[in-house]
Amino acid sequence: MKRKMLYVGSFDPITNGHLDLINRSAKLCDRLIVGVAENPAKKGRYSVEDRLHMLDLVISHLDNVETDSFTGLLADYAKRRGVEAVVRGLRATMDFEYELQMAHMNARLYRSGIETLFLMTDPAYSFVSSGLVSEVFLFGGNVEGLVPDPVLAYMKKIR
Amino acid sequence: MKRKMLYVGSFDPITNGHLDLINRSAKLCDRLIVGVAENPAKKGRYSVEDRLHMLDLVISHLDNVETDSFTGLLADYAKRRGVEAVVRGLRATMDFEYELQMAHMNARLYRSGIETLFLMTDPAYSFVSSGLVSEVFLFGGNVEGLVPDPVLAYMKKIR
Amino acid sequence: MKRKMLYVGSFDPITNGHLDLINRSAKLCDRLIVGVAENPAKKGRYSVEDRLHMLDLVISHLDNVETDSFTGLLADYAKRRGVEAVVRGLRATMDFEYELQMAHMNARLYRSGIETLFLMTDPAYSFVSSGLVSEVFLFGGNVEGLVPDPVLAYMKKIR
Amino acid sequence: MKRKMLYVGSFDPITNGHLDLINRSAKLCDRLIVGVAENPAKKGRYSVEDRLHMLDLVISHLDNVETDSFTGLLADYAKRRGVEAVVRGLRATMDFEYELQMAHMNARLYRSGIETLFLMTDPAYSFVSSGLVSEVFLFGGNVEGLVPDPVLAYMKKIR
Amino acid sequence: MKRKMLYVGSFDPITNGHLDLINRSAKLCDRLIVGVAENPAKKGRYSVEDRLHMLDLVISHLDNVETDSFTGLLADYAKRRGVEAVVRGLRATMDFEYELQMAHMNARLYRSGIETLFLMTDPAYSFVSSGLVSEVFLFGGNVEGLVPDPVLAYMKKIR
Amino acid sequence: MKRKMLYVGSFDPITNGHLDLINRSAKLCDRLIVGVAENPAKKGRYSVEDRLHMLDLVISHLDNVETDSFTGLLADYAKRRGVEAVVRGLRATMDFEYELQMAHMNARLYRSGIETLFLMTDPAYSFVSSGLVSEVFLFGGNVEGLVPDPVLAYMKKIR
Repeated sequence: MKRKMLYVGSFDPITNGHLDLINRSAKLCDRLIVGVAENPAKKGRYSVEDRLHMLDLVISHLDNVETDSFTGLLADYAKRRGVEAVVRGLRATMDFEYELQMAHMNARLYRSGIETLFLMTDPAYSFVSSGLVSEVFLFGGNVEGLVPDPVLAYMKKIR
Repeated sequence: MKRKMLYVGSFDPITNGHLDLINRSAKLCDRLIVGVAENPAKKGRYSVEDRLHMLDLVISHLDNVETDSFTGLLADYAKRRGVEAVVRGLRATMDFEYELQMAHMNARLYRSGIETLFLMTDPAYSFVSSGLVSEVFLFGGNVEGLVPDPVLAYMKKIR
Repeated sequence: MKRKMLYVGSFDPITNGHLDLINRSAKLCDRLIVGVAENPAKKGRYSVEDRLHMLDLVISHLDNVETDSFTGLLADYAKRRGVEAVVRGLRATMDFEYELQMAHMNARLYRSGIETLFLMTDPAYSFVSSGLVSEVFLFGGNVEGLVPDPVLAYMKKIR
Repeated sequence: MKRKMLYVGSFDPITNGHLDLINRSAKLCDRLIVGVAENPAKKGRYSVEDRLHMLDLVISHLDNVETDSFTGLLADYAKRRGVEAVVRGLRATMDFEYELQMAHMNARLYRSGIETLFLMTDPAYSFVSSGLVSEVFLFGGNVEGLVPDPVLAYMKKIR
Repeated sequence: MKRKMLYVGSFDPITNGHLDLINRSAKLCDRLIVGVAENPAKKGRYSVEDRLHMLDLVISHLDNVETDSFTGLLADYAKRRGVEAVVRGLRATMDFEYELQMAHMNARLYRSGIETLFLMTDPAYSFVSSGLVSEVFLFGGNVEGLVPDPVLAYMKKIR
Repeated sequence: MKRKMLYVGSFDPITNGHLDLINRSAKLCDRLIVGVAENPAKKGRYSVEDRLHMLDLVISHLDNVETDSFTGLLADYAKRRGVEAVVRGLRATMDFEYELQMAHMNARLYRSGIETLFLMTDPAYSFVSSGLVSEVFLFGGNVEGLVPDPVLAYMKKIR
């Protein structure tokens, strides 16, 4: 049986924590879709195109991974793509409670039985979030090692 | 001695979790006021009139419950209405800490000795919040069973 | 309608945090039963008789409060005593999660609809527990102000 | 590619929360091993044989699930059984932090790259644990609906 | 060796909880800088000048304490001022997780080895935050005892 | 002014997380006492002598650090040793709440004004505890990198 999973986020921008989760998730299924969530009501720091480009810079070597973007309900998107499970990363308690709420809501919305799977973020990246990385970068701080090198290069280029 | 209690929230819109708490709270006192908190600085999704109407749709059969709205400090409103206790629902840890902070602040502001009572939300509704319900509804998701049926009908009518 | 509530704990020994909750709970009902939970499998530091005696030392002046002890399930005891609600104190997140679990289990066991009500502990006593007080006392530390004075006197007497 | 996963616990006894997780996990892989962890230093309420028997009572109809027991390190057992991932259930924050610690420790011990996958427990069972169920059962409380019916029948039989 | 520490915050306005931490931190070092963080993207309720003035009203009697304001990364400011450690106050779990994330990020950014030291807020002030105090004050609530008296007088004067 | 601090724990055995905190704490004061807490009621895995020996194996090169052991109240020991502050490490929320309770209790017991200072554990060691390390070691797991090498050698020698 072919197993297809979905890993979603805003990836604004992709961090080394995200990349670690993509690498680990890709080993758990036959096909992994990395979906950039586009929220019309909340403009991100980078355009969806830039976010997809930064993702592609670091995961194009992975055979069974593809990138995509979507708007609307995750539950609808997951159904449309025919995945078996949605993968989420967990860092700390605050993540956990938000994720718990979303997972239960989605379990209700999927009905079809799509699962939400959680993986723990590597402790070395437990303090890294896209928002914090962007803010530090904006103020001229050094974010080397927090985002993949090609991503950092691109962030500098389009600054 | 007549016991009067107050249950406040934004009820934007009322969910089945709220309704469960109203039913349970009504049994704990002689009179329960359900107060819609109106925050001039934070416009809700529904007008206060619509929120009160949706409340009335589902609690008008309860003899000892009345609805109302208020602005300003909860402590002042509670004193003005002469209640003995304010009832709050608790879902998860993040709720808990915010509620803990508010309860201590209110204890200081009441002085008169109005109590804050907490009831645990039914686990079946632990993931349901007005905000999440509204967002799912906005994107066309199915929120049946998360809000009372008459409320859902009204939400569809005024969409 | 007469309202009867139950406040249970091990009270091993009663602290000023407990006493504050008893005083506040007594105002919320017509009759408050303070029940010492006796666990045959977990011997306390003080005998149930001593715990009841220490309770009586500080609450005998409260007209509508009585003390009692019980073994077995809280749900059964609450039903037997015909109370409308069980009162619990909340201090911090760890308390909260344990209490959440117990409240949901009890909600199932009561069926009859006995409520669990939570009151926040006064921040001044948020760090005080029977266990910590006993341990500090055992090592000769000063627990004045953490337990009521008559209780401390008794603890010293029977040491 | 054949995917093999492992779901471990003390199952002392198996609850409806566990059963829900077994059913959901079985859909995520080609073969699921349900492993009863035997801790020589901490005797359970039921013997490992009884625990395995109670498991078999309710999962023998699942084609791709088998039961087993083990002692020693989970990391070693997982490697020996050649699984790709270990599945764990998450209920609340206290679970979460313990599980986070174990997942990171195991990630270090596996090295081979066995993943720990977390699934959220159904909110309806969020308050159910083997320990609490056993205690309520011991005191004569009604645990129907918290453990599978055939398991309850067996618990009564061997009481 | 002279020890220099930094205590930063928005101090919008300074509360009695902050003042307690300043007094305690000042005893732990030879020189304490109290730094008002100025965020160009998030206007506070009071101007940075007013915030500094309110700070000066209550700490000018402390010999080894000076006030200052800064924009940009805390890590850069701390390095520029040559401090050995940054002091932070902790109130509750939500504070804790945010602070944990910032401390790890800063540890990475400092590199030079500046420490982040945490002190627990006095339980009596555990529910007091600048934001909550401002909101209560705005709605005409009594915040006496939550902010220092000279600060309250100034808040009333410039209202 | 000479600053003297105290870092206490059971160190049963010392881990790399402890060692990191000792190194960082030693830079914050003129003299650091590392105190092994001896609890007559709770025998550790290693004798106090072995724990002190393992500490000495890895910190004897630090000029301003000395080791010691104590029984009884930390507050009394801290007073007796004349320290200005007690240093504690924080890993996660569960640590945090326990530490918060102890810090407030100690603040009351010190009276003299000894501070409790918290440092965040390096994320790389956030999942490492003496108890978990001992258990893994006992079952033959590889704890290299979790405890200092000379400590691991000693643990193997006296196994």
